[in-house]
Amino acid sequence: MSLLKKNSARLRDEERQRLIWLLTTDKAVTSALLGKLTLAEQYDEGTLVDDLAEVGSLVAHLPPPDLADTLEALPSEERHALWNMVEDDRRGKVLLEASENVWDDLIEDMSDRALLDALQTLDIDEQIYLVQHLPRDLTGRLLASMSPEERARVRQVMNYAHEQVGSIMEFEVITIRPDVTLASVQRFLRRLGKMPENTDKLFVIQRDQTLIGELELKTILLNSADKFVHEVMESDPVAFHPEEKSEIVARTFERDNLISAAVIDSQGKLMGRLTIDEIVDVVYEETDSDLRRMGGLSSEEDVFAPVTKAVKTRWAWLAINLCTAFIASRVIDGFEHTISQLVALASLMPIVAGIGGNTGNQTITMIVRALALQHIQPGNFSFLILREMGVALINGIVWGGIMGTVTWLLYDDLALGGVMTLAMILNLLVASIMGVLIPMIMAKLGRDPAVGSSVMITAITDTGGFFIFLGLATVFLL
Amino acid sequence: MSLLKKNSARLRDEERQRLIWLLTTDKAVTSALLGKLTLAEQYDEGTLVDDLAEVGSLVAHLPPPDLADTLEALPSEERHALWNMVEDDRRGKVLLEASENVWDDLIEDMSDRALLDALQTLDIDEQIYLVQHLPRDLTGRLLASMSPEERARVRQVMNYAHEQVGSIMEFEVITIRPDVTLASVQRFLRRLGKMPENTDKLFVIQRDQTLIGELELKTILLNSADKFVHEVMESDPVAFHPEEKSEIVARTFERDNLISAAVIDSQGKLMGRLTIDEIVDVVYEETDSDLRRMGGLSSEEDVFAPVTKAVKTRWAWLAINLCTAFIASRVIDGFEHTISQLVALASLMPIVAGIGGNTGNQTITMIVRALALQHIQPGNFSFLILREMGVALINGIVWGGIMGTVTWLLYDDLALGGVMTLAMILNLLVASIMGVLIPMIMAKLGRDPAVGSSVMITAITDTGGFFIFLGLATVFLL
Repeated sequence: MSLLKKNSARLRDEERQRLIWLLTTDKAVTSALLGKLTLAEQYDEGTLVDDLAEVGSLVAHLPPPDLADTLEALPSEERHALWNMVEDDRRGKVLLEASENVWDDLIEDMSDRALLDALQTLDIDEQIYLVQHLPRDLTGRLLASMSPEERARVRQVMNYAHEQVGSIMEFEVITIRPDVTLASVQRFLRRLGKMPENTDKLFVIQRDQTLIGELELKTILLNSADKFVHEVMESDPVAFHPEEKSEIVARTFERDNLISAAVIDSQGKLMGRLTIDEIVDVVYEETDSDLRRMGGLSSEEDVFAPVTKAVKTRWAWLAINLCTAFIASRVIDGFEHTISQLVALASLMPIVAGIGGNTGNQTITMIVRALALQHIQPGNFSFLILREMGVALINGIVWGGIMGTVTWLLYDDLALGGVMTLAMILNLLVASIMGVLIPMIMAKLGRDPAVGSSVMITAITDTGGFFIFLGLATVFLL
Repeated sequence: MSLLKKNSARLRDEERQRLIWLLTTDKAVTSALLGKLTLAEQYDEGTLVDDLAEVGSLVAHLPPPDLADTLEALPSEERHALWNMVEDDRRGKVLLEASENVWDDLIEDMSDRALLDALQTLDIDEQIYLVQHLPRDLTGRLLASMSPEERARVRQVMNYAHEQVGSIMEFEVITIRPDVTLASVQRFLRRLGKMPENTDKLFVIQRDQTLIGELELKTILLNSADKFVHEVMESDPVAFHPEEKSEIVARTFERDNLISAAVIDSQGKLMGRLTIDEIVDVVYEETDSDLRRMGGLSSEEDVFAPVTKAVKTRWAWLAINLCTAFIASRVIDGFEHTISQLVALASLMPIVAGIGGNTGNQTITMIVRALALQHIQPGNFSFLILREMGVALINGIVWGGIMGTVTWLLYDDLALGGVMTLAMILNLLVASIMGVLIPMIMAKLGRDPAVGSSVMITAITDTGGFFIFLGLATVFLL
């Protein structure tokens, strides 16, 4: 496979796939990379030497984000093998680009020293980010390696929680003064010789660091060189505070089509900046974790983690699910007498429960997303709950009616059909009300409305469905 | 409420919420805006006149993306009322920023003429995007209003499907020649006087439109003015073809931290460009619709749509769910004799089904995301399925064992406990295998693996769970 233009995105797609293929189809490749084969054994293995050479050249050729992606797509052992091939001076960057749930796998075999060395290749804000979230506490040692000024700055930033923008801001910004000409800005930039990635604007500050404006690169190029910065700058910039929530800031980035924006403290002094690449990561992470958490999956679960780890991350939700299923089972048990009188109830009750679970989950999915988009306000709450109840009522009457008729015909028992219809209507109403209330209450309590909401609604619609159906049957049919 | 700095993101958050509050808490506001109240009636209504004035000033003050967001967060009637307040010349922009599922609500009351006028305020690529996806066919009339050259260009673009980047590319690009100096590039830019949004680079083309490089604005500023473009340009740019899938291109944007990138045809000629703001929209849309579709929600469902519309968008999945529940019910019915002999089975069987559904949904969620991230390759497929089976086996033995013991103690029936354990193990295995296979097979068939996968897995684990449990009970307990 020839290594064509380095930037072709499609070529890199192919290279990543090739790398995965090489590592996963021939166990010998992984064994050799992990040092489990002697040189003699390696030469015995047909094309192994060629394969190893190709792995080496692919690793050398692929940039860190692509390597990170490949590592994420490999089972644990192959992941270790590939990680061993990544040069020390690129490991920091690769770690940074890799998703959090593979970090512990990657750093497992690295000594603290090696890890700190890998971090040294990164910017300070990147180092802090990693050191704060890596599953090993190196904060003290990292701080010890810094200059006193750096340390002071870092301590200030380390206060911010994972979901606050303070934790993803960058320190590297280019600042200029308002009272210089664009010509001198250009001279200054040329002397600087480079700009941080995603620099679309410079920040205009006063002597005391107060942010007073922004100057887009575009503005420098479009205006004549003898203009002063304060004449052409945007004097009312969008700026964020470090305590703001990243998810909400991401919406503003999207709404305003921002590439970068200043982060300022409560006195309006410039602390750093946010860039679109961090924001895109936030967006991916946010929606991804909503998806996972609704079903009761840990957001740390990695699809290629070994069995033991997956068992560990999933057991809690399984236990909860088992408890709720057990409660539902006890409800049925309470009606044992009813069921023994009319065994048909046993085969009909899962329909009532199932349809409720389905509707409840649809409702909850919509509400969780609407909450994330901040679309739910006190003013429209009553509309929402009435709407969901209306939908449930119509569906209950239509589908409950159909199911009731089928039941009537099937068992030749009109009363049983009536109970079926009524139970479906009631359980759909329960599902819709709880589908709105559960995420809303969780949000009110400051909890993440996505976490386990699907497990909860299913528990309620199951238990509720069995209780309603068997209860009605006991009253009307016995 | 004072209208402070126009750019403050937080202020606009408050203004949006205020607008929603004004429209939803006082029905009179909406009625007045919809022209349902006479002037005299308006004056009778306490603070109504003040409220209307405030709505007016908020609408005038908020930029289009914020208005779009507010419209999305309103029930249908209030949405119409607010839309009436939006000035004609801003409606195009607002439409463009609003999510697709509110479009039909917004354009409902607009004549074709008014809609075409609203479109005129937009760039050509934006006009085409809207006209192609609006729920009313105005393509012919839009084309008729264009110049012949525009029309030719447009026709070419209209071939691309919604999920291809061709449909979201922009035509407005700044192109330069390789053999000029940076000084003349700067003169050219100043004469141009403005740049399209999200311009971080210019495209270097030959006389025949072939893309040969990119020149970042940054590069112009960092290099001395007498350098030639070809000396400092990136000669190996990341470029996309219009047929590529937006979701995949979005990953490349994320991986490479791109702000904009060229779109080229098969001969390498520049057709347009993609920008990060479109890509962020793609990301939001993609993950959002995965979330919805897994649970069998239409991606068009709008949380504030009226009841009738919600019933319409949801009925198909409800019907499917009812069918699968009915099949499961028939399986139980087949074991009526067994249940009548041992009523305890009726209360235990939902546990077996429920735990399978839970595990199956966890597995399917992971696989759908891994497929979206292109992490699943032929090489690692067998690892994946073995891993999920391993997890299922361990969980089955542990939790099945616990549940079996509880059953044994509760009913004082060792054999029943054994059947419970075995049934749980087997159903968890079914859940894990199908949880991997369903999305993989759908992807292989070229279908979206997210669509209804959750409904399908639940159907299988329910039916399977009942069958396995009652079948084992029939064999071992009767």
